Amino acid sequence: MKFEGYIFTPKPFYGTLSSKKDRIASIKAIRRPKKITKLILPGFISTHIHTIQTHARNTAENMELLEWLSKVIWPFEAKLTKKTAYYSALCGMDESLSKGITSILDMATARHTDSVFEAARNCGIRAFIGKALMDQGPKNLIEPHPLEEIFDHLDKWHQKENGRLQVTLCPRFVLSCSEKLLRSVGELSKKYRLLHHTHASENKAECEWIEKRYKKSNIEILEKFGCLNEWTTIAHGVHFSDRDIALLRKRKVSISHCPTSNLKLASGLADLKRLASLNLSLGVDGAPCNNLLDPFFEMRLTHLLNRYLHGLYGFSAERVFKMATMGGAKALHQEKEIGSLEIGKKADFLVIQVPDFVQFNPDFPYESLIHSITSADIHSVFVDGHQRA
Amino acid sequence: MKFEGYIFTPKPFYGTLSSKKDRIASIKAIRRPKKITKLILPGFISTHIHTIQTHARNTAENMELLEWLSKVIWPFEAKLTKKTAYYSALCGMDESLSKGITSILDMATARHTDSVFEAARNCGIRAFIGKALMDQGPKNLIEPHPLEEIFDHLDKWHQKENGRLQVTLCPRFVLSCSEKLLRSVGELSKKYRLLHHTHASENKAECEWIEKRYKKSNIEILEKFGCLNEWTTIAHGVHFSDRDIALLRKRKVSISHCPTSNLKLASGLADLKRLASLNLSLGVDGAPCNNLLDPFFEMRLTHLLNRYLHGLYGFSAERVFKMATMGGAKALHQEKEIGSLEIGKKADFLVIQVPDFVQFNPDFPYESLIHSITSADIHSVFVDGHQRA
Repeated sequence: MKFEGYIFTPKPFYGTLSSKKDRIASIKAIRRPKKITKLILPGFISTHIHTIQTHARNTAENMELLEWLSKVIWPFEAKLTKKTAYYSALCGMDESLSKGITSILDMATARHTDSVFEAARNCGIRAFIGKALMDQGPKNLIEPHPLEEIFDHLDKWHQKENGRLQVTLCPRFVLSCSEKLLRSVGELSKKYRLLHHTHASENKAECEWIEKRYKKSNIEILEKFGCLNEWTTIAHGVHFSDRDIALLRKRKVSISHCPTSNLKLASGLADLKRLASLNLSLGVDGAPCNNLLDPFFEMRLTHLLNRYLHGLYGFSAERVFKMATMGGAKALHQEKEIGSLEIGKKADFLVIQVPDFVQFNPDFPYESLIHSITSADIHSVFVDGHQRA
Repeated sequence: MKFEGYIFTPKPFYGTLSSKKDRIASIKAIRRPKKITKLILPGFISTHIHTIQTHARNTAENMELLEWLSKVIWPFEAKLTKKTAYYSALCGMDESLSKGITSILDMATARHTDSVFEAARNCGIRAFIGKALMDQGPKNLIEPHPLEEIFDHLDKWHQKENGRLQVTLCPRFVLSCSEKLLRSVGELSKKYRLLHHTHASENKAECEWIEKRYKKSNIEILEKFGCLNEWTTIAHGVHFSDRDIALLRKRKVSISHCPTSNLKLASGLADLKRLASLNLSLGVDGAPCNNLLDPFFEMRLTHLLNRYLHGLYGFSAERVFKMATMGGAKALHQEKEIGSLEIGKKADFLVIQVPDFVQFNPDFPYESLIHSITSADIHSVFVDGHQRA
């Protein structure tokens, strides 16, 4: 397959891109026409999503995190069956693909993790999936030994489908995990080189509960229990202290910035300039808090919010684009495989049809992309060389 | 014509809506099906737009207001011809219609106002258009007597096309207008009941220049020169003092809130709770600062930003929706004709095809609309009963 357009390689230019099997085979510059009508982008990476929650979209409004979890989300998750979990996850994955997300770091729920892997296998998305680990909290979701079935998941799903699937460890958040569980996550992660992924410092009430229980911050507890390392991605991070940030840097932790979710649940606004020394990526979070799974919206919002906090000289449009692509690839330890359009990397890419009314300007490629192109302009989406949307 | 769906009347319900000629003829409740697949919305109203700037999209990035105007926007406007002005305006109007905007309050440039009216006549949008009045500032745009041609515009365009077109007065902003010009705008507005529309308190440097020249704020100067009355709409209003707000309330001035433009030009964030006693409406502003003309994006951003400033109990999704519809109608003094779906009002409405993956929830109609529906889901757009997109 061969496509012509303005190609968002690390240094964008006009040219052709071809793929062979699951890899990018060639990228060549050619003369740019006067009007640019197609763009070729690396697939976007959402480092925080809950596809299993998709069918709870538009049911959990006007609540902050802890009420939202206990009143709607946990009861929804507790009622899922093997079959409804499959369709809810599939719906979220299909939507993600249709909006240009080719890779996800996906936290499932306590049960039916196999259903989520099956959905990912069948729809073709690149998926790093883990069951939500909870041994404290809502009675109808918690388990005495949540890690027991992880070896079964590893056998069945890890590195399967041409490496497109991976098993990850997902302690839900400090409030729903015992010390023993968190310590085991840290050990397993190091021993088997498994990604792990949790929520932290999202909401003030959450932070206060943890301070009350442990006399330490969220991040200090994760550090104390051996749960911070280069395989860790922390979602949200709205309320980090300077000490938290120093710990995260020391442990080479990645951050998944989720701006819509943070605003919609009234959690706040994460200041990316404070986090700029960490590896930053973007997350759409789940359908009941976002309520769309759209990386274009998240990029645009990230850039606009940064302008509010820091004026013109905050994060550039280019930096925001790189959070949504290469930053995600680094969080997933897949920077040699995905995250940018380079020969030999996986053929995970999108083709954009520039709308008639948009004058795409190659003098400002990232600004033009983020502010005048939307997911509605996606022409086609490829993962591992297969067209998936 | 007759449509079935969930209808956003002032109290939304499921039913049918029919139009006859240019008016809504009937709205009737019927039994709601299990899955809602169509929505019927009043047309959105953008009370601040510059359609003539549309072809400058993606050319003026990473600048604040005054530099943005002087380096890119004014030179662009100065070079427009009768023909290029027509096509630039038409492009912006067609895009607006395609995104669900059925009425606009549109500031043109110093010349070629007829071209903008011609574009509006031909594309079918409801348009309240005025030449940009400037007798101070950039030499290649200012005129000694900018109001001279207003009577010609009134003759040719005012209340024409079944009342779809209106002439308005658009002093660009205090910095580009003499006292004499502003006083004349106030007088003409009152005498002929003409809408007038300006930018004010958008950018800190703009405010400082005005303070330096007059020892008064932007709004105090407009008040002093007789330029604030019930026919006034002020765009932006990021930096109002409490005294400014009290003056605006006293004079019954409407506000056009332009959140994307305010963030993108690093102007700041207007706090709507402070402005809640004024009539509030939404503006997409022009393509070179937004860079899309999308009321769905502006509504969503408005709601999210308000959550940042005021938590869950700021402006509700319903209130934001009403800014984008009835608030706009009131600013245009057209609240008896447009702004809501009611029998006898103008047939300005949109039909939305709810995407397969979205579960529209009538228990949260405004939240579902603002956070899970986008302009990409528009099925058709009607103005005065004619399909325009």
